[in-house]
This record gives sequence, C-alpha cells and structure tokens, in this order.
Amino acid sequence: MIKYNPKKWFSLIFQFHRSDTFRILLPSMILIGLYTAGFTYLELEVVEWRDGATTTVHSLLGIVLGLVLVFRTNSAYDRWWEGRKLWGALINETRNMAMKIQAFLPEDDLHNRQFFSKYITNYVYAMKGHLRGKINLAELELMQELPLQELEKAKHVPNIIATAIYIKCNQLYRRQLISGDQFIILDKEVKALTDIVGACERIKNTPIPYSYSLFMKKFIFIYTMTMPLGFITSFQYWTIPVVMFVFYVLVSIELIAEEIEEPFGVDSNDLPMEEMALRIKHNVREILSNTHRSLVTGH
Amino acid sequence: MIKYNPKKWFSLIFQFHRSDTFRILLPSMILIGLYTAGFTYLELEVVEWRDGATTTVHSLLGIVLGLVLVFRTNSAYDRWWEGRKLWGALINETRNMAMKIQAFLPEDDLHNRQFFSKYITNYVYAMKGHLRGKINLAELELMQELPLQELEKAKHVPNIIATAIYIKCNQLYRRQLISGDQFIILDKEVKALTDIVGACERIKNTPIPYSYSLFMKKFIFIYTMTMPLGFITSFQYWTIPVVMFVFYVLVSIELIAEEIEEPFGVDSNDLPMEEMALRIKHNVREILSNTHRSLVTGH
Amino acid sequence: MIKYNPKKWFSLIFQFHRSDTFRILLPSMILIGLYTAGFTYLELEVVEWRDGATTTVHSLLGIVLGLVLVFRTNSAYDRWWEGRKLWGALINETRNMAMKIQAFLPEDDLHNRQFFSKYITNYVYAMKGHLRGKINLAELELMQELPLQELEKAKHVPNIIATAIYIKCNQLYRRQLISGDQFIILDKEVKALTDIVGACERIKNTPIPYSYSLFMKKFIFIYTMTMPLGFITSFQYWTIPVVMFVFYVLVSIELIAEEIEEPFGVDSNDLPMEEMALRIKHNVREILSNTHRSLVTGH
Amino acid sequence: MIKYNPKKWFSLIFQFHRSDTFRILLPSMILIGLYTAGFTYLELEVVEWRDGATTTVHSLLGIVLGLVLVFRTNSAYDRWWEGRKLWGALINETRNMAMKIQAFLPEDDLHNRQFFSKYITNYVYAMKGHLRGKINLAELELMQELPLQELEKAKHVPNIIATAIYIKCNQLYRRQLISGDQFIILDKEVKALTDIVGACERIKNTPIPYSYSLFMKKFIFIYTMTMPLGFITSFQYWTIPVVMFVFYVLVSIELIAEEIEEPFGVDSNDLPMEEMALRIKHNVREILSNTHRSLVTGH
Amino acid sequence: MIKYNPKKWFSLIFQFHRSDTFRILLPSMILIGLYTAGFTYLELEVVEWRDGATTTVHSLLGIVLGLVLVFRTNSAYDRWWEGRKLWGALINETRNMAMKIQAFLPEDDLHNRQFFSKYITNYVYAMKGHLRGKINLAELELMQELPLQELEKAKHVPNIIATAIYIKCNQLYRRQLISGDQFIILDKEVKALTDIVGACERIKNTPIPYSYSLFMKKFIFIYTMTMPLGFITSFQYWTIPVVMFVFYVLVSIELIAEEIEEPFGVDSNDLPMEEMALRIKHNVREILSNTHRSLVTGH
Repeated sequence: MIKYNPKKWFSLIFQFHRSDTFRILLPSMILIGLYTAGFTYLELEVVEWRDGATTTVHSLLGIVLGLVLVFRTNSAYDRWWEGRKLWGALINETRNMAMKIQAFLPEDDLHNRQFFSKYITNYVYAMKGHLRGKINLAELELMQELPLQELEKAKHVPNIIATAIYIKCNQLYRRQLISGDQFIILDKEVKALTDIVGACERIKNTPIPYSYSLFMKKFIFIYTMTMPLGFITSFQYWTIPVVMFVFYVLVSIELIAEEIEEPFGVDSNDLPMEEMALRIKHNVREILSNTHRSLVTGH
Repeated sequence: MIKYNPKKWFSLIFQFHRSDTFRILLPSMILIGLYTAGFTYLELEVVEWRDGATTTVHSLLGIVLGLVLVFRTNSAYDRWWEGRKLWGALINETRNMAMKIQAFLPEDDLHNRQFFSKYITNYVYAMKGHLRGKINLAELELMQELPLQELEKAKHVPNIIATAIYIKCNQLYRRQLISGDQFIILDKEVKALTDIVGACERIKNTPIPYSYSLFMKKFIFIYTMTMPLGFITSFQYWTIPVVMFVFYVLVSIELIAEEIEEPFGVDSNDLPMEEMALRIKHNVREILSNTHRSLVTGH
Repeated sequence: MIKYNPKKWFSLIFQFHRSDTFRILLPSMILIGLYTAGFTYLELEVVEWRDGATTTVHSLLGIVLGLVLVFRTNSAYDRWWEGRKLWGALINETRNMAMKIQAFLPEDDLHNRQFFSKYITNYVYAMKGHLRGKINLAELELMQELPLQELEKAKHVPNIIATAIYIKCNQLYRRQLISGDQFIILDKEVKALTDIVGACERIKNTPIPYSYSLFMKKFIFIYTMTMPLGFITSFQYWTIPVVMFVFYVLVSIELIAEEIEEPFGVDSNDLPMEEMALRIKHNVREILSNTHRSLVTGH
Repeated sequence: MIKYNPKKWFSLIFQFHRSDTFRILLPSMILIGLYTAGFTYLELEVVEWRDGATTTVHSLLGIVLGLVLVFRTNSAYDRWWEGRKLWGALINETRNMAMKIQAFLPEDDLHNRQFFSKYITNYVYAMKGHLRGKINLAELELMQELPLQELEKAKHVPNIIATAIYIKCNQLYRRQLISGDQFIILDKEVKALTDIVGACERIKNTPIPYSYSLFMKKFIFIYTMTMPLGFITSFQYWTIPVVMFVFYVLVSIELIAEEIEEPFGVDSNDLPMEEMALRIKHNVREILSNTHRSLVTGH
Repeated sequence: MIKYNPKKWFSLIFQFHRSDTFRILLPSMILIGLYTAGFTYLELEVVEWRDGATTTVHSLLGIVLGLVLVFRTNSAYDRWWEGRKLWGALINETRNMAMKIQAFLPEDDLHNRQFFSKYITNYVYAMKGHLRGKINLAELELMQELPLQELEKAKHVPNIIATAIYIKCNQLYRRQLISGDQFIILDKEVKALTDIVGACERIKNTPIPYSYSLFMKKFIFIYTMTMPLGFITSFQYWTIPVVMFVFYVLVSIELIAEEIEEPFGVDSNDLPMEEMALRIKHNVREILSNTHRSLVTGH
C-alpha cells in the first residue's frame, strides 16, 4: 500500500504512478482512439449512412453503466475494507493475547512467555504467506515443537500453529498455571486468530460471481465499441477524444474494483501486510518482555 | 462456482460460457429483434402514425429501472455474500471445534476423537444435502449411534447429528473428561453449527417478496415492448440493434440477481459447497490426527 | 408469503395475482387515464395555452423521485429482511434450547422435557398472535402452571411465558439438576427469545417518520397531476398511456415499500409465520422426543 | 411520534399537519415565487439578456443534488432508526433484567424486588430527561439511597442510578443471595443499560460535519436562486410554479433529514419516549409483581 | 468539531467559516473563472472552431462523477461515524469499568480506586495523543509504577498503560480481592480499551486506495478543464459562472470527503477528542469518588 497525502491535488493529478489507471489504460486508450478515428473518417469522409442525434441511448445506458460500476466498486471497496479490518483485528488480538499471557503467567516463567512470543509472531507470518500462496519459512522463527520439515508437509500451516498454541493453553490449564477463568479468556483470543484467517481466505477465494463479471466486461465492451456510432453526428472529429475520455472513466472504475477486491497481494493498493506483520512482532515482543511488568509490580 | 481471472478481459468478452447471460438471452434477443423489425417496418414503410421525439419517457423510466435493478442486484449479491460468509464461518467453526477437541481430550482417547471427526464431517455433508433438497447418504460415514435407516426417516438430519454431538459433549462433561469451563467453550461451537444451518435455510426459503418480483417483470416487459415506439423516430432501422442491446443490458441485471440470490444450488455462480465440504473434511482430519499433537507435547 | 419460482417470467408477467400492484392500481390508473384524456382534449382541441417542450422538469424530478423511492423501498426491504432474520433466529434459538434441554436433563426426566416442549411452542404461538394483535388461545397447549384465564388478563403474554421458562431454569439450577455452567448456557437462549419478540415489536410499531410519508405522497401526487402539462406538447394523445405507465411504475414502488415494511401481517408478502411456527413445533418435538437420545447413549 | 396509517393516501395528501414540510415551507415557497415572478417579468417584459436553452446545468446539478440529498436523508434515517433500536433494546434489557431478578431472588425477598422495580424505572425516566436536556425529578419515584437533592447536584444522573444498581448486584453476590454465575448474567444487563445511554448521547451530540452542512445549504440556495435564469426561456411564466415545486421537493428532503437525525426531542417525528418509558414501567412492574411466579411454583 | 444549529439556514448560507469549502475553494474558483473567461473570449471572438451542442458528454459524465463522489463521501462519512462510535464506546467502557471497580473493591480500598481513576484517565489522554502523532506527557497524571521517562521511550504508550491495568486486575484476582467471575467481567472491559485504540489506528492509517484517489483527482481535473468546450455553444459568456459553480459543487464534495475520512485531527470537522477526554475524566472521577457509594450502602 502506498501512503500518500490525499490533499496534494497537484501531484496526484500530474503524477503517473505505476498503479495509476491512466498509465495502465494508456495503450488501450490509444487503440480506442485509432479505432474511433478510422470509424469517424469513414463516416464523415467516405460514406454518410445516417443523420440525427443518437446520443440518447448512450446517455441512458451510460447512467445505468455508471450505476452498476459504482455499486461494483463499492462492494469491492467493502471487501478491501473488511480485509483491512481483519488485519486490524489481528493486530488487536495478538496484542491482547500477549498482554494476557504477560499478566497470567507466573513472573519467572520466561520459557512460556518465549513460547507465545514466538508462536504468535510465526502465526502472523505464516498467515501472510498463506494468503499470498507461498509461505516463506525463513521468516518464521525456529519452533522447537514444530520442526520446519513438518510445516513443509502441512496443507494449512496457520492451523497447525494455532493448534499448537491451543494445546499449550490447555496444558497450562491442566497444570493449573492458569485458572479456568483465565483459560476461558485465552480461548477467545485463539478462536479470534483462526476466525481471522478464515475470513481472509473467504475474501481471497471468492471473486464476484462469474456471470456478473462476464456481463460487466461485455457491457463495457459493446458500449465503448458503439460509442462512435452515437456521437459522430454531434461531435464530428471531436468524437475521438470524447470516446477516449469516456473509455478512461468507465474502465478505470472497473479496473480499480478489480484491484481492490482482492487486497492480500503485493500491488500498490493491497494491504501493507509486511509492515503490519512487523508491527505485530514488535508489539508482542515489547509487551512480553519483562521490563514494564517489573515497573508495575514494583521490582 | 467457476474460478476465473477477473483481469483477463479478452477471454471474458469473447467467451460464451453456459452461464453467460448473453448466451442465455440470445433466443429472447432474437425474438425481440424480430418484433422490433416488424414494428419498425410497419411504422416506417406502411403507416406513419406520429412524429416527434419520444425517447424522453424511456430515458426517464430507463434510469428509474436502472436504479431499481441495481438495488435489486445489490441485495441479491448481499444474500450471495452472506451465504458465502456462512460457509466460511462453517469452515472456521469446524476447525475450531476440532482444535478444541484435540486439545481437551486425554491424549490416548482415540475413540472420542474419531467420534468428533466423523460427526463433524457428516454434519457438513448432511447440511450440504439438506440445502440442496436431497441428502446423499452415501456421502456420510457410518455413525454407530445413528443408523442410516434412522436418518432416512428424519425430517431434519443436520439437527439430529448436532443433537448427537451435543449429547456427546454433555456426556464428556458429566464424566468429567472435560471441565465446566471447557464445556462452555464447546457449547458455543455447537451452537454456531446450528445457527449456520438455520441462516442458510433462511436464505434458501425466502425469495424476494412476490409483489416486488411481479412488478419487476411487468416493468421490464412493458418497457421493452414499448421501446420501439419511442425510438423509431430518431433511429429508424437502427432501432433494431438498439432495442436488442438495451434489452440485453436490463434483463441481464435481473437474471444475474435471480441467479445469485439463492447460492446453494449447483449453477456456475453458486457456492462451491462440494469443494468446501471436502476442505472441511481434510482440515478436521488433519487437526484431529495425532501427529502434530505429539510434536507439541514432545512425544 | 407466496412461494413462487422467480425464473418463470412468462407466468409472472401475465398473471394478475391479488397482491399484484398492477391489479391494485388498475382503478387509479383508469382514473388518471380519464383525467389525462380530459386534460389533453381540452388543451389540444379547445385551448392552446402554450408551446415548447417542458418535459425537462419532469425528467429531472422524475429521477429525484426515483432515487427517493428506491431508497425508501430499500429501507422497507431491510425491515422485511430483518423481520425474516428474527424469525429465522427464533427457529434456531428454539432448536438450540431444545437440544440443550435434551442433553442436560437426566435421561428419565420426561416431566421437565414435556414442560419445555410445551412452553417453547406456546411461546412461539403467543408471539405470533401478539404481533398480529390477537392471540388465539386455542392454539396454545394447556399449561398447568399458567391457566388460560390468567393469560387472558395479561398484557404481554409472551413475556409471562418467558418468565415461567426462566423460573423453571432457575429451579433446575437451584435443585442442581443443571450445573451453573449449564445455567449460563440456558440463560442466553431465554434472553434471545425475549430479544426477538422485542425487535419484532419495534418493526411493527414504528412506521417511517410521519413527515417523510406526507412528503412522499404529496410529491407523487403533484408529480402525477402535472405530468400531462409537461408531456402534451411532445406526445399529444400518446400522453394518456404514457402518464398511466409512469404512474403505475412510481406508485408501485411506493406501494410495495408500504406492504413489506410491516412484515407480520397476513398479506401475500408477509412472512409465513404460521408455517414457521409449525416448523418450530415439529423441530422442538422431534429433538425433545426420546428416540434419538437413546440411539446415542446406546440404550 | 405520530401513529398513522401509511396506506391512507387521500388523507395524507390533503392533510396539512403541523409537521408537514409543505406547511413549514409555504412561506418560503411564496417568497421564492415572488422572487421568480419579479425576475421573470423583468426578463420577459423589460430586458431580454439572452436566449437558448440552459436547463442543462440545472438538470445535471439537480441530479447531483438529488443524489447528495437522498444519501443525506438516508444517513439521517439510519440515525433515527438506530435511536429507535436503542430504545427497543432498552425495553428488552429492562424486561430481561426484571425477569432475571424475579427468578434469582428468594421468593420472599420483596424488599430487593421493589428496589429493582424502582431503580430500573427511574433509570429510564432519568435517561429520557437526560437526552432532552432536563430531568423532571417529579417523574422519579423516591429512592431511599439516593435522595433527590443528591441527584440535583449530579452531572450525569443515569450513571449514578446505574452505579447504585451495580452496587446492589454486587452486594447480593457478596451476601450469596445470588451466585457467581447469576452475577455474571446480571452484569451483562447493567452494562447494556449504560451502553444504551452512551449510544443515545452520541447520536444526540453529533450533528453531521459542519462543512457538509454549510455546503448543502449553500448548494441548495445557489441552485434555487439561479433556477429562474435557466428555466425562463423554455417555460416563460410557467417558471414560477416550476421553481416553487422544485424548491419544495429539494428543501423538503433536507428538512426531513434535519428533523429525523436527532430523534430524542418532542417533535412529531421524534421517538415516542414518553410512551416507551411508560411501557417499560408497566412491564417491569408486571414481571416483578409476585402473581405469576406463584403460578409457576405452584403456591 | 463545531457545534451548530443545523436549522439556522440563514446564518449557514451567509457565514463563510474557515472550514467552509466555499472559502477554501474561492482562489481556485477564481482561477477556473479566469481560465474559462480566456477560453470563452478566444472561442467567441477570435476563432470559431465548431458548433453544435456538446453538453451531452458533460451531462452523462457529470452524473457518473456525481455518483462516484457521493459514494466516496458516503464511505468517508462512514469512517467519521465509526470514529465517533469508537470514542462513544470509549466513554461507555471507561464508565462501565469505573462502575465495576467501584462495586467490586472493598469499601475502604481507596488506593486501588485511585489507581484505576488515574490509569483509565491517562489511557484516554495517551490514546488521544497517540492518534494525533504526539503524546503530551504533561496531560498525564503521575503514575507511580510507570515513570515518565519510561513512557518517553515506549513506542506505543496506550498499550503499556493497558498492560499495567491488566496486570493490576490480575493481581487483584490472585490476591482474591476480586473473584474469578469478577475478573472475567473486568477482562472484557480492558479488552475493549485496546480494541478501540486498534480500530482508531486502522482508520487513521488507511486512506482510500491510492489508485482510487489518483483516478478521482484526474477525473475531476479533466472534467473541469474541458467543461468550457462543452458549454460555450449554449451559454456563451454565461459559461464562466456556470463552470465556476459546477466546479464548486463537485470539488466541495471531494474536499469534504477528504476532510472527514480522517476524523482524529484538529480540524473543525474532526471529533472533539479534547472535550470527550475531559468528559471521561469527570465521569470516571465522579463514579470512583466515594460519595454515592456511601449513599447506597447507607453509611
């Protein structure tokens, strides 16, 4: 994700960033321009099939297309925002879990504190990889109980790490290092972790319905291809830039929707999962390190 | 559900898939084309009832129709997405339940692990069948306590399996194999299973209100049938493709809404329940198999 | 509620069901048609006040009216769908409660099982009657502890039945037939029952704000009455069917909104509460009958 | 809030209720009419600045204005509906709390039953007053532990009553009149009470952003003032009623939004808090009176 | 945030507040006016490239732009409102926590009451600073266990304070000053605090997707720059105010969206965090002061 200042109009207008739909669409716009130019030349200079204003149909359908596109972008944005909320929740839940572990465990139990510090962080990195289709095992810290060769064989690495965390919590409860009340509290946190990964998988694995996508593309295609027909009478050679501009606007909205509806990739609009995973790592370590605890307990 | 790459414009525009509204509507479009052709011929060559542009009404009502259709599609999409969320939640909850069972039960209790592995999976397959109106009993694994002939008589098979799971949890609690805290935790998971099946039934059994559907169809029908009247003056013989295209656009939006508002069938836009049920089966088995547990406990 | 196949276009277009807005509006449409006919005759044949196209204002306001109507229908639909969700939740919660009672109570405690089977079912029937303004006491089964003459005097029958259920749960807890953990679990279910009836009452008792409704009706009325003024110049005698059609479309959307925003009546678009109450009765009985339990416990 | 039958079109169209925007706007409409009349006279009879149709800009901006207004009304309606939901939840939660108190307390503990009956009711009346800026202490029943002179000094009366309820619950728990499980259950109810008052305060204290409101008013003002300019060419003296009608429609939508976005006042569109508070009083008393309990326990 | 009376139309129309988009946009509007004036002069007096009405394209794209802008404003408003909800929840949760602490702790435990009074208030002030990028340590009260120099080094001050609160709760539980049931209750409150700060960070750190912002600005820019081209034929010199007004309307909607989508700053539209933090301080102190408690317990 690119951080930018949305109030800097000038730079946003005149910058042509790699992910700018203007830059992406430029080749297609030129093609459309040439097509329209040929068409217009033919009609104006060679034959004159017809007269009378026919922008009516394109006006009407343009509004309908605008409506459809805006709704589509909106639901794509909802998915993007849901993905962001899920990662926000991940930051919260890992923080909460670390805070609770820190408070619940006996003060001198460094071993189990390290266990959680490591497993929570690894869970997040495994989840990031899982959503991008490829887990980079080098990002994970060594887990004594889960050797890397085991992870390599597994189909769903985050699940396995969560199960390990869950078994650890249950052990602590069985050994009475944490009470039943504390166990119920920790249970909710682990459940939250697996719910988050599940919801992210849902967003990732479900594009909008196939028929819908087919329809949108065909609608835009036919609309654009027939635009010169409707506009030449009123616009003559001005039809060329007009068609290019309308094409730019309509297809941009569709393109942006396509980009943001799957927010877990590495595009410029995708969520900054690298950065958030790193922030979680720092947060969890800061909370689980012994410093602040000693401050509070007065040691 | 068909997986596809939404960024491949070319193939999406020129492919005519079985579920493409273009292909579905082609016969009706040709009919409408013939109707308009006859109408136009009559008006232009035989009689000349009237003159003056009357696209105004169709422009105005076209926008209103567009609004109504887009909102309709939107609420159909919400149902589709809710159905997807429910199945996503099913994946999560079954995972969570398996993880908890794995952690709670004594290490050597293979019998009860198998019970849950089997019953959770059967619950999912029974639910899939229940939503499609026909449970395929061959997909279920043999359940000792619930013979198939009992299931055949039952009205609501998922309910019976859930009750069996619930009774098992209660037994474990009564026999103190799991504590009260653990029982409360498992209770939430079973409740989630029955809530999910209930919500899916709600989506399946509730089409949009009858009056609404009657109105939409009548509106679209009258609108399309009178379009030639409004367009002939400006478009002459061009009215034929224009009416066909407008018809394609408007009816497509309605058709897509109809298809996606009931997402539990076997159409191309319906949810991949087969695949998700299989994924649940694999997940639950992977988690409840003893391998990873031994890794964690160090055996 | 009428079940129908939304994909049968032909029958939906040519059927004129009792709840079809076309049939409901037919008399008003004829009136409007006569009014417009008189108006048009006057203007075209008797006087000629003015010339020049004035469809502009009706086009502009028509779109604004369309927007307002579509949003209104949408929020009415949200209420209808919320009502449906609440009854779906009622089905789920009663199921869950029955499953829990079945699992919690000692195997031979038929008396208390019958208590819950009867009281849960009666709660649902009392709620149905309460929402329709008239409880049919004949639908309720005899409740030993709550004689019918007591119910007749009560202001809020569902409340009294819920209190009785709650007191029963508390008794079971005090007598240690269910544990504290089980009591907390049952508490949530009873709370859900009263929350559902409260939410349904909210939908039933709150029409859209008075000013809003006044405005909508006045807007539609003035718009329709002035339509002939705006359309005669371009449409001459065609104004008559045009005004009738526009009237049909706009008023239909408002009518449908009015019908579905209060979904607890007995209209064709209202929720099938009879059927759902019956389904709950069957579900609760099936779950609380002893058959399947014996299967699971192996007796 | 005014209860009315939304299906009575005739009376709604021809009634001019105090809260009808038509009546409220009548003076402004006459002013606008005079302004337009003067303007039109000047342009048609005295000078003739210009010719050519210029309704284009007002058509375009009218649609944009319609969109903005409809969205604004929609979010105002959401606030109104949220306020209604909160009061609906208040009715539910107080009912639930009363039912639980009734079930939990020993049968002969009339003193504490009266405490809750009085404090819950007072909480609701204090909340009503708090939201309207003025608590009417005469509506509160005498509370032994919280003398009126104490309440008069307090900044946030509902908070103080809630704290008193909370302390009472804690006392019952400490004295083992209710168990830990029952205490957790009651805790949720008290929390719900304070959450509801907090959410109502949020709605009350937060108008839509200042810039947004400034913009809306300026947009509507400039739009209306320039309307005659755009419409005179096509409409001549008809411009006068046209401008008045468009003014009525657009400003009505804004006015309704303003009225319903703060639903806790005493306007005709505001929530019937008096009536709901009274209903809560009756419900809580009915539930906490000993009658029905004796029915259930068989005494 | 500025409090104002949204019903005072007159002052809202004629006031030019610092945050009024009219005032903000005035320089740009004058520039656009000059540009259009030059353009119009050139076209009308010097050259005459073309004739024929071409407002069609700007009408069509204007509606599409309106749709996109309105949706954008709407989602910005949703963020603003979510931010407001979060701070509302903060007010509630801190109140609840204070009420619970007040009820749970032994009556004479002033020390721990002061601890919570101080730490809760500090948490809120630290959160406010954290969201504005700069914590003003002078606003925090002295915390014995967390010396200021420690806080200065910390990356995430609210986290550290929350951890300290959590450790304190756990201590109280370990020392049996509060029971397990009470601990579970307090746990939810602390979790709520960290969830709120997390959600606020999400809103703060996530502008709308970069491509979307780039597209909006380019669309508005090209639309405005080409407006004179489309309007001169019909409007001649009137084009100048028309373009200025359309520019004002469209860019205002975008500007307002930009302002309200990040509601934690110090602009006039931003949330009144100062005031809310102060209110929390007063509430927490009022509740945790011993006065009212004594009233209830009768001392």
